Amino acid sequence: MPPFDKREYESRVRRTKAAMAEADIDTLISTSPGNMNWLTGYDGWSFYVHQMAVTAQKLDRPLWIGRGLDLAGARLTCWLGEAELEGYSDDYLQSKENHPMAFCAEMLRAHGLDRGRIAVEMDDWYFTGLALDTLRRELPNAEIVDAEFLVDWVRIVKSPAEIAVMEEASRIAERVMQAAIDAIRPGVRQCDAVAEVYAAQMRGTEKFGGDYPACAPAMPMGEMAAAPHFTWTDAPFETGSATNMELAGCRHRYHSAICRTVQLGPAPAKLADLAKLVGEAFEASLDAIEPGVTCEAVAEACQAVFRRGGHEKPTRMGYAIGLNYPPDWGERTASMRAGDRTVLKPGMAFHVIPALWLDDWGYILSETVVVTETGCRSLVECPRELVVKT
Amino acid sequence: MPPFDKREYESRVRRTKAAMAEADIDTLISTSPGNMNWLTGYDGWSFYVHQMAVTAQKLDRPLWIGRGLDLAGARLTCWLGEAELEGYSDDYLQSKENHPMAFCAEMLRAHGLDRGRIAVEMDDWYFTGLALDTLRRELPNAEIVDAEFLVDWVRIVKSPAEIAVMEEASRIAERVMQAAIDAIRPGVRQCDAVAEVYAAQMRGTEKFGGDYPACAPAMPMGEMAAAPHFTWTDAPFETGSATNMELAGCRHRYHSAICRTVQLGPAPAKLADLAKLVGEAFEASLDAIEPGVTCEAVAEACQAVFRRGGHEKPTRMGYAIGLNYPPDWGERTASMRAGDRTVLKPGMAFHVIPALWLDDWGYILSETVVVTETGCRSLVECPRELVVKT
Repeated sequence: MPPFDKREYESRVRRTKAAMAEADIDTLISTSPGNMNWLTGYDGWSFYVHQMAVTAQKLDRPLWIGRGLDLAGARLTCWLGEAELEGYSDDYLQSKENHPMAFCAEMLRAHGLDRGRIAVEMDDWYFTGLALDTLRRELPNAEIVDAEFLVDWVRIVKSPAEIAVMEEASRIAERVMQAAIDAIRPGVRQCDAVAEVYAAQMRGTEKFGGDYPACAPAMPMGEMAAAPHFTWTDAPFETGSATNMELAGCRHRYHSAICRTVQLGPAPAKLADLAKLVGEAFEASLDAIEPGVTCEAVAEACQAVFRRGGHEKPTRMGYAIGLNYPPDWGERTASMRAGDRTVLKPGMAFHVIPALWLDDWGYILSETVVVTETGCRSLVECPRELVVKT
Repeated sequence: MPPFDKREYESRVRRTKAAMAEADIDTLISTSPGNMNWLTGYDGWSFYVHQMAVTAQKLDRPLWIGRGLDLAGARLTCWLGEAELEGYSDDYLQSKENHPMAFCAEMLRAHGLDRGRIAVEMDDWYFTGLALDTLRRELPNAEIVDAEFLVDWVRIVKSPAEIAVMEEASRIAERVMQAAIDAIRPGVRQCDAVAEVYAAQMRGTEKFGGDYPACAPAMPMGEMAAAPHFTWTDAPFETGSATNMELAGCRHRYHSAICRTVQLGPAPAKLADLAKLVGEAFEASLDAIEPGVTCEAVAEACQAVFRRGGHEKPTRMGYAIGLNYPPDWGERTASMRAGDRTVLKPGMAFHVIPALWLDDWGYILSETVVVTETGCRSLVECPRELVVKT
């Protein structure tokens, strides 16, 4: 049932344990649904309750710990055996008395894992302040440390099997972008265009269907286009307005993100000029990407183009992307920005997004790109231009 | 731009401050995107970075604190003035050195709010362990305490304006369920049916469009129907199989959730029997709901029916629902289960879900219901039966 074969998962666990050994970590509690999926195969919309994967030097395979109600889903989707699945009762659900992290601590004790250095994903969205305090109270004999996105850093280099799934996500992303471009017409309500986008995301291709991306489509129009994370309204698209679209295709939780801007009616000169500049910055970024180069060098290549055009981009030019769950398809590891000395390696994947948001407008262009042995390769095929519909 | 008028927001802040006073809280940091929206109006898919609303006895209106890039969205969607919006630079974004909670602490100092009892939403998904440790380090003169879902408890009673929006969400939910029932046919890929569901969710009605629900559609079929939070696959629906659908309509972030089961081909006797029992349990739950009754009494009324049929439901029969963001449309306050002594009041809204998941199958039926002065009222109109398509 999980989308990869057993050897892929075994290799993941092996590499994770090696990284743990290097960081002197005995046991790692992963609450990130993306990391849980990557380690165990588990897939389900159950991350609104506490759940975790436990990887330990002492254990051959990870433990899945979650709500008892979700054991059926764990049996269906994990590569693990029954002995590695532990479900807590609803007494632990949103209860003032019993926190699921206390159940987790009990499971660690049962497996002899309640001592030594135990790492947690301290800044992961699914690891709350109360989860931390509960673990500290329940594991008095352990030293609790921050894993600092250890699993995310191990999985930043994708296997060929993972890249193949990202290629499928990219076939979906191309269709999604085309559906959006087709749907945006004067008088069409924004919500109706978004309906077409979502339908294309799930329909996928004739050969394979799509999965829900970790972020909602962002399609702000007109004055809202300056607000990159504004979603949509019921208002109709208007002639003379530009819409900034940040969309994605998703397959088996792997993403291919893509941005384009659509102008209804002739493009104002200043938008056309910005589109040209951002286009050049995008190409400069791609030209700069190759193994051995740092993320900040790529950002600088991009920034140099912006500066030539009289701009300075205050936000990052790209970030690692791959397997994830809401709220983010980004991997929270490497970012293309000044100060990020991550060295590029073949198999890394980035959402390269040299978008510029100005006072009350903006222009966006992006694609998902994989680092190859000699440079990089965009996963999507889509004209890199301002889309003008007249 | 925010969907409610200023007086509604002022009343929310007033009621929140009263609850804070009762709990001896000087300043409250809300990281929950739902609570942020409820207090400030802020709406955007930016909750993959740290952001917060600060409500203080000392301040008339809340502060919005978020990423600088999202200030444009805050200006568009909040009822606040420029002086109440604070954006941090990208130096704080996913950085090892600078955590956004350190910026938050700086803002608290700037407003003279860094002393006294400061409450945080300790078990909120968007309040990480690292956020907690950072605040503790940066606010040495404050006593940091758990707000214990204070805002969520204040907003459990909805205003007439909020109920009106939930009515709109319910009009969408009815169309969503019908779209799902229409789409599920033998040979249709599950992903294609899900595409129709998503499209209906966004399209809404002719009068108003929809918003993305806080949970993905769950439509597990056949053996997967025992796994309530399994989403979907590319496999086609099969004659003889049942699909358990948990869906919602969403409007301005308010939800109306609804569950039904679809059987393709004649229903096996055991499924028809279970459907009858769950239907009776649902009606018994609704009959039990009225002001003054406790959540556990409603659960017991439901459980009594199950017991008569030889079942015992181990999970809750319902939970508070309303305004929210991924990963959950539930409000994490009241649950209909033994031990929950929450007393029902007019204006509370619940997703009443007396679903039964058995070993490798199940049957689900649910609606979103509002407590009235004399009883309760379901917000959706949809036949309460097993849907059999032959």
